[in-house]
Amino acid sequence: MNDVFLKACRGEAVPYTPVWIMRQAGRYLQQYQAVRRKVDFLTLCKTPELAAEVTIQPVDILGVDAAILFSDILIPVEAMGMELEFIDSRGPVLSPPVRDEDSLNRLSVPDPEEKTGFVMQTIRILRKELQDRVPLIGFSGAPFTTATYMIEGGTSKNFLNTKKMIFRSPELYAALMEKITRTITAYLKAQIEAGAQAVQLFDTWGGIFSPADFREYALPYVTGIISELRGWLESRNAGHVPVIYYVGETGGLLEEIRSCGADVYGIDWRINLDDAARRLGSDAVVQGNLDPAALFLPRHGIEGRVRDILGRASSARGHIFNLGHGVLPETPPENVIALVEMVHHLSGE
Amino acid sequence: MNDVFLKACRGEAVPYTPVWIMRQAGRYLQQYQAVRRKVDFLTLCKTPELAAEVTIQPVDILGVDAAILFSDILIPVEAMGMELEFIDSRGPVLSPPVRDEDSLNRLSVPDPEEKTGFVMQTIRILRKELQDRVPLIGFSGAPFTTATYMIEGGTSKNFLNTKKMIFRSPELYAALMEKITRTITAYLKAQIEAGAQAVQLFDTWGGIFSPADFREYALPYVTGIISELRGWLESRNAGHVPVIYYVGETGGLLEEIRSCGADVYGIDWRINLDDAARRLGSDAVVQGNLDPAALFLPRHGIEGRVRDILGRASSARGHIFNLGHGVLPETPPENVIALVEMVHHLSGE
Repeated sequence: MNDVFLKACRGEAVPYTPVWIMRQAGRYLQQYQAVRRKVDFLTLCKTPELAAEVTIQPVDILGVDAAILFSDILIPVEAMGMELEFIDSRGPVLSPPVRDEDSLNRLSVPDPEEKTGFVMQTIRILRKELQDRVPLIGFSGAPFTTATYMIEGGTSKNFLNTKKMIFRSPELYAALMEKITRTITAYLKAQIEAGAQAVQLFDTWGGIFSPADFREYALPYVTGIISELRGWLESRNAGHVPVIYYVGETGGLLEEIRSCGADVYGIDWRINLDDAARRLGSDAVVQGNLDPAALFLPRHGIEGRVRDILGRASSARGHIFNLGHGVLPETPPENVIALVEMVHHLSGE
Repeated sequence: MNDVFLKACRGEAVPYTPVWIMRQAGRYLQQYQAVRRKVDFLTLCKTPELAAEVTIQPVDILGVDAAILFSDILIPVEAMGMELEFIDSRGPVLSPPVRDEDSLNRLSVPDPEEKTGFVMQTIRILRKELQDRVPLIGFSGAPFTTATYMIEGGTSKNFLNTKKMIFRSPELYAALMEKITRTITAYLKAQIEAGAQAVQLFDTWGGIFSPADFREYALPYVTGIISELRGWLESRNAGHVPVIYYVGETGGLLEEIRSCGADVYGIDWRINLDDAARRLGSDAVVQGNLDPAALFLPRHGIEGRVRDILGRASSARGHIFNLGHGVLPETPPENVIALVEMVHHLSGE
């Protein structure tokens, strides 16, 4: 089994730097587009055989060192009782937005097998089909980022409804976050039981906070989930399942983030990895952080950036190569293939 | 004359911390809305008497320590030869987008008095009407942020067209930036000649870059403008006109930014000011950095944040209080008035 990714997560010595790509199963691959022509996005997420198929595509095509479950961070939110649609021009739409006690009370903490059994089924199929070629990463949105979609009713520019709730109705916000946190914790446990060998928490919008607000309104819920997962794994003698915590626009927040107890910190491209490693502490394992747009560079330009990132990452305890955000839809697939080869080759394979 | 703002820009001792608010003339004020009911946004920018009127409103209503010219960063772009419209649901639209040599060649470096004389006229009216009550700040978009609007044709999410041009046609990008930089330099000189007593360069989108790309593709043009302005002022014995450089999402970029030679660095709310001051260097004057959404807090919540920011700013050579980004449309004006009072009161007036 290729366990280079899991070893790197644990900070152990590895023969080369493992690499996977956020959104590696996606629109930039014609093989993915072929599947999507048959079903819409939500149906794809909810059809285990198809979700497993597109999850495996980048393992075959790119040669990455990990597979990541094909799904969406809003799947558990729909299971809580919100209506979810994906509209091409607007992105995800959740209705009705959660902005008062009534709309909060209508939401439940779902049983993950009962309400999102298709996710666990996808994971079980994947473990069988991957046959230990590479480890499988499960994932969830982190509580704060999940909450922004629920409060705004979708994506947002200023996140003003979210911040208004936090600043004017902190008890309502806390009650919502408590419900989300319980949902996500159960959801991640179910993924691990089904076979996920690592999990990533996406806090894409965590960077909209000042450091103090991030520490108060986003971080404790992440810390809570990680600590609950660790205790649960220990009580079952289930071994170590690494947790990766990714925050968008981490620049000002690294000193806060390092207390959450994650095994790996996902870093966006706006900060140099050596700077990030120094601020996180020398025992941190980092994941990242090529600008997704850099995959539009000519080949030698990409190589220069890969060398730079590998060099800077050498000051961290461990490194998993990735982009700083999801791969962009128009990205030339041959450049992604070349990127994976470069990372492997230049880091020592 | 209230010269506390100008003294703080120069790092001199001040009796209290001066404060102004980005977008202080704007939709959150009913007095502004009253003017806007008569004319559309672009007409307002181009009618010196009205632009002067809304510029002065926040000086009267809020008691801020500086006025800032009411205008838009795309005004000089329209003068270069692009068509500019403001569409309510989409924001600014510039056409046709600049993506090849042809569209670049159609653009000129305009004479600022000839093509944007209404801006200089607004400044001359303002200096007369302000009667030295407070200094007047002129402004422009920084070259990179200006370029993103020209290349994307408006606002953007991923700035992919911009990055594609930079990564695939660096000569085209350099030629565009050269034209923009010459335009902005002449535009700022004209503003200073008309009476602007300080100028701010807005690089709102500078934070979309990795540190190395920011250093290569955004910063040199800013450094060039500042150095050109300094030489020009010196050759005319025109005294010192402070330059403020504001970059959105500065977190990972501060070590780069500090070389540009600005008098003051505008900092967004995503990083603590003491951290920013340390990374910029102890001789830096900082401006910022309250989260605009914090103006929706109850009064005591705002006060706590003001105290925190003033405390952190004490480690910088000087401090001008401001928000970390523009004031939001729905902000309660009474909270903005209270904010200005708090800053003055708590910092020593």
